[in-house]
Amino acid sequence: MTQIEVGIIMGSQSDWPTMKEATEMLDALGVPYETKIVSAHRTPDRLWDYGKTAASRGLKVIIAGAGGAAHLPGMMASKTRVPVIGVPVQTKALSGVDSLYSILQMPRGFPVATMAIGAAGAANAGLMAAGILATSDPALATRLDAWREALSASIAEEPVDD
Amino acid sequence: MTQIEVGIIMGSQSDWPTMKEATEMLDALGVPYETKIVSAHRTPDRLWDYGKTAASRGLKVIIAGAGGAAHLPGMMASKTRVPVIGVPVQTKALSGVDSLYSILQMPRGFPVATMAIGAAGAANAGLMAAGILATSDPALATRLDAWREALSASIAEEPVDD
Amino acid sequence: MTQIEVGIIMGSQSDWPTMKEATEMLDALGVPYETKIVSAHRTPDRLWDYGKTAASRGLKVIIAGAGGAAHLPGMMASKTRVPVIGVPVQTKALSGVDSLYSILQMPRGFPVATMAIGAAGAANAGLMAAGILATSDPALATRLDAWREALSASIAEEPVDD
Amino acid sequence: MTQIEVGIIMGSQSDWPTMKEATEMLDALGVPYETKIVSAHRTPDRLWDYGKTAASRGLKVIIAGAGGAAHLPGMMASKTRVPVIGVPVQTKALSGVDSLYSILQMPRGFPVATMAIGAAGAANAGLMAAGILATSDPALATRLDAWREALSASIAEEPVDD
Amino acid sequence: MTQIEVGIIMGSQSDWPTMKEATEMLDALGVPYETKIVSAHRTPDRLWDYGKTAASRGLKVIIAGAGGAAHLPGMMASKTRVPVIGVPVQTKALSGVDSLYSILQMPRGFPVATMAIGAAGAANAGLMAAGILATSDPALATRLDAWREALSASIAEEPVDD
Amino acid sequence: MTQIEVGIIMGSQSDWPTMKEATEMLDALGVPYETKIVSAHRTPDRLWDYGKTAASRGLKVIIAGAGGAAHLPGMMASKTRVPVIGVPVQTKALSGVDSLYSILQMPRGFPVATMAIGAAGAANAGLMAAGILATSDPALATRLDAWREALSASIAEEPVDD
Amino acid sequence: MTQIEVGIIMGSQSDWPTMKEATEMLDALGVPYETKIVSAHRTPDRLWDYGKTAASRGLKVIIAGAGGAAHLPGMMASKTRVPVIGVPVQTKALSGVDSLYSILQMPRGFPVATMAIGAAGAANAGLMAAGILATSDPALATRLDAWREALSASIAEEPVDD
Amino acid sequence: MTQIEVGIIMGSQSDWPTMKEATEMLDALGVPYETKIVSAHRTPDRLWDYGKTAASRGLKVIIAGAGGAAHLPGMMASKTRVPVIGVPVQTKALSGVDSLYSILQMPRGFPVATMAIGAAGAANAGLMAAGILATSDPALATRLDAWREALSASIAEEPVDD
Repeated sequence: MTQIEVGIIMGSQSDWPTMKEATEMLDALGVPYETKIVSAHRTPDRLWDYGKTAASRGLKVIIAGAGGAAHLPGMMASKTRVPVIGVPVQTKALSGVDSLYSILQMPRGFPVATMAIGAAGAANAGLMAAGILATSDPALATRLDAWREALSASIAEEPVDD
Repeated sequence: MTQIEVGIIMGSQSDWPTMKEATEMLDALGVPYETKIVSAHRTPDRLWDYGKTAASRGLKVIIAGAGGAAHLPGMMASKTRVPVIGVPVQTKALSGVDSLYSILQMPRGFPVATMAIGAAGAANAGLMAAGILATSDPALATRLDAWREALSASIAEEPVDD
Repeated sequence: MTQIEVGIIMGSQSDWPTMKEATEMLDALGVPYETKIVSAHRTPDRLWDYGKTAASRGLKVIIAGAGGAAHLPGMMASKTRVPVIGVPVQTKALSGVDSLYSILQMPRGFPVATMAIGAAGAANAGLMAAGILATSDPALATRLDAWREALSASIAEEPVDD
Repeated sequence: MTQIEVGIIMGSQSDWPTMKEATEMLDALGVPYETKIVSAHRTPDRLWDYGKTAASRGLKVIIAGAGGAAHLPGMMASKTRVPVIGVPVQTKALSGVDSLYSILQMPRGFPVATMAIGAAGAANAGLMAAGILATSDPALATRLDAWREALSASIAEEPVDD
Repeated sequence: MTQIEVGIIMGSQSDWPTMKEATEMLDALGVPYETKIVSAHRTPDRLWDYGKTAASRGLKVIIAGAGGAAHLPGMMASKTRVPVIGVPVQTKALSGVDSLYSILQMPRGFPVATMAIGAAGAANAGLMAAGILATSDPALATRLDAWREALSASIAEEPVDD
Repeated sequence: MTQIEVGIIMGSQSDWPTMKEATEMLDALGVPYETKIVSAHRTPDRLWDYGKTAASRGLKVIIAGAGGAAHLPGMMASKTRVPVIGVPVQTKALSGVDSLYSILQMPRGFPVATMAIGAAGAANAGLMAAGILATSDPALATRLDAWREALSASIAEEPVDD
Repeated sequence: MTQIEVGIIMGSQSDWPTMKEATEMLDALGVPYETKIVSAHRTPDRLWDYGKTAASRGLKVIIAGAGGAAHLPGMMASKTRVPVIGVPVQTKALSGVDSLYSILQMPRGFPVATMAIGAAGAANAGLMAAGILATSDPALATRLDAWREALSASIAEEPVDD
Repeated sequence: MTQIEVGIIMGSQSDWPTMKEATEMLDALGVPYETKIVSAHRTPDRLWDYGKTAASRGLKVIIAGAGGAAHLPGMMASKTRVPVIGVPVQTKALSGVDSLYSILQMPRGFPVATMAIGAAGAANAGLMAAGILATSDPALATRLDAWREALSASIAEEPVDD
């Protein structure tokens, strides 16, 4: 069985439509992953356990998405040295700026690799996770290069009306 | 010995000049308290222990101050039913708006009683703690009323040049 | 008859869909309450009377919701030592940031326990009120603990597609 | 004795350096005024009395300056039909945007004529008060026209180095 | 024929749904007015003429609404001593914060009495205009007092479900 | 005598330290210019005249700097087809975001070529003016290319401690 | 064949509905142009080539629209002395403020003539391009003057209900 | 000689005081690195070369700091699959929010791992780089764990006056 090296966690079921974009990117690149709901506030012990065992379970990257007072990515970064990629989920009143600041503004000692707000950020979290793994996985590096070249090649020369 | 019912915690020594205002207010009102550094990210286990024992140790209110991606108040609210009052400490780049959003925008289930950004908020956290205790301590309620009356009485009728 | 210890006030009928969330939380926790429209600007005398009699009528917590230049929570805090929880109602042009600043940024002397913008904030106001009452009501503390445990237990391990 | 038609009120002695600019403008235009500290939160009864007697005392304009959760202008507008001009005093953390939103975003029924944040706004409050009085005081209208012409005439044609 | 003392101008036909609220308020208070489209950028000469003749035509208040880089209120204030009330019309990308800053932040010498963003601000502009006229029109003052009392009296004691 | 093709105008003497950067850039590129104080609010007729005669006087670009409710660039764009470059001058309370929105958010029909807030924006206004003139002045184009190459060549390979 | 002097480029097909407004304005003024998709991130070499050949191909103005971390306008300005007009495309989470800051805040040396956010900005980009070309094309200047006069003439005197 | 796996690049010498924090963190963890000035706008070809050779030169992480319209991190991400960590340098007018949005809001396909604004973000960029390398370097992982434990152990139990 392939070792799972990417953990995708989110604060709530309601974050799934956003975070699913990360899984689709990893699927496209052939990177296995697991998906879990880990609520910093509602299931803090789950967060603790996840963080404490992340490295020993073989995880190499954790993608964490949350909205509002989004403590999940930063608290996870506090519990493990495994790199944490944070995805600020868009929110109703503040458009995800609350999520962004809660994830981004970490104090010295606990970086969170913050992505753009919302779906594009989640997709990019998948790509960043792949990029990190590719630093020690030449085959994945090759697949990532190919994906990037295909993206460039897909851009039309001129805009067209619908 | 008097039971300590108010815990004042902060994420870092650097928050102390702000949070000291809460202690001064509690001193003025004759409310005993303890002060601790509890960093959500650097000492998460300390946060865990503090939260898990807060109610059984007899704490009735927790004042938590932090800056930036300020997870301490919300994570404490996740660990204990004791009411948590949050103080957003002012920050360099974002003036404490990052602290504010990280503390305020808690999801359903885990309220944090958020105060104004900075020193005025810390002082008010002390007053809010006293107000909460006063709901079941008539002597404190009387002292609080007196403090409020003295504040009103101290206001001059007209502004004066320095 | 049970003493009503929580007063829920709001600036306008239009705040009711938001503030109703506070009542539902209090219903779930078995905490009796009253609901009133008290407009700081349109019915200032009503605000005055409510504030002046709040403590003597036995109120122990006031939840105040308002939008825009939201003066109700702060003015109520000026009139009574009973703790005031403020709920910033979301607004059309400024998404409730105007409500938030008007409620949060109180000067030294008059704290308002500010909640998140909108419906989640209103629900949390109910929980915060219960938490305050629970500091001197062991039975309510037990119910609150149970509610919190049930919330944690309700979280699925993994996200699912709709 | 000349009837005083302009009342200048402010929430705190600390607002005086800002609000003094309004008095200087009124001095320049020969408009008598009174200055008072009226704190919405610390002296609410003073606010009540001021508002209730404003019209009968012969006031025709009220200039109200305040900072942070600045409730003074709006609450005064709630208590009297005399036009209220609001001056958002600059604040430390939020640069007066909190003051601005608390003053500006009044609900239907209670306008506050909001000026620019800080000292320029206070000076302009004096001018606006004069402009309002000038609608029924031709001599003042003439003085105001002259002041405006002098201002225009004072502008150099070209910028110069210091 | 009654002298028209209130001019309502707006930068574009698209501002009319907002600005109409001002006319409805003035209708309710029995204050005659005129409505014009005066675009600061598209019809600058119309702006010039309106401003230069405003006082001599007998106007006592000008209500000016505009959106985006909203120069109409401030430019009108530059051309006439007649008090100008500014209404920031809500915009698509920036929710009217652009309109607000363009209207509010006038330099020393040219105050614009700025109202809340959008429809409530337009309605309040009508009320503010009436309040200004009422300083020298006792009959209007009486009608305004009655309108205010009716507003207060219309507020229900308790919120109701729809 | 060389025809002056660039007019640099500013709302106030206080804008000069910022706007001087534009002149220094034009000096470096050998482009003659004139500098004038033209206040949209204090000297509207000067603005009118400047705009009406700009094209006929041979101006090909106008650089306009202003702060706060910065109407000068947009009003100038309303009066002349000569391209207007706007420089938002930094302000005390709002850091120039007020200036920016007042200059940038022009309605369809009256573009203002907006530069960065403050001194860098003023310098770039000079460069943009030169770039516009260079579209029909090959010698200037050559000088501009050289200036750009020199800038690139001046960048050290590695950062150094002071 | 007419020399094409205006290049309209955009980061993505999704920017086309916005950028089309620029083409419509140029069509109205009889200015030929080309439209291309040039993605700063997906097709950086295309950006390089476009920039390097812009001047020699005879382009006199480049209009560049992009959203989010909008690097296209600024990177193009880095590659060519041809004036670049930037259009911040409105975005979902941040309403185009991200696009705006990414385009506007260019360092000394590389101005981008930034337009308003969204469709009005794109239309104005077309007008600004025409205005730049008109500095050395009297016939276009005449057409531009006529267009501006027609715009002014189209404004009704009074607003009307729909 | 040890292979250098971390490249630290910045847009300007003026970014060095901020970016130096990244080097200090890497020094503390025994991770070799190189430091270069690579200006996206002033030295685009340098950026191109750096990006094109990054992977083949053996770089595994790139830390890129820039301020204002900060295009360096995102453009580097466009040129190489090597993970890019972005540091938003604080700016004068907009406090680094312009830098942040320019770095963070990357489109699908080109993630930048964004850190907090300013010095804390630069230090954390060093830690994140180490964390990424540690995913395939057990000795570094051990050093990183030790550094984290030492940080936690350094936190005093209680705050102290200076």
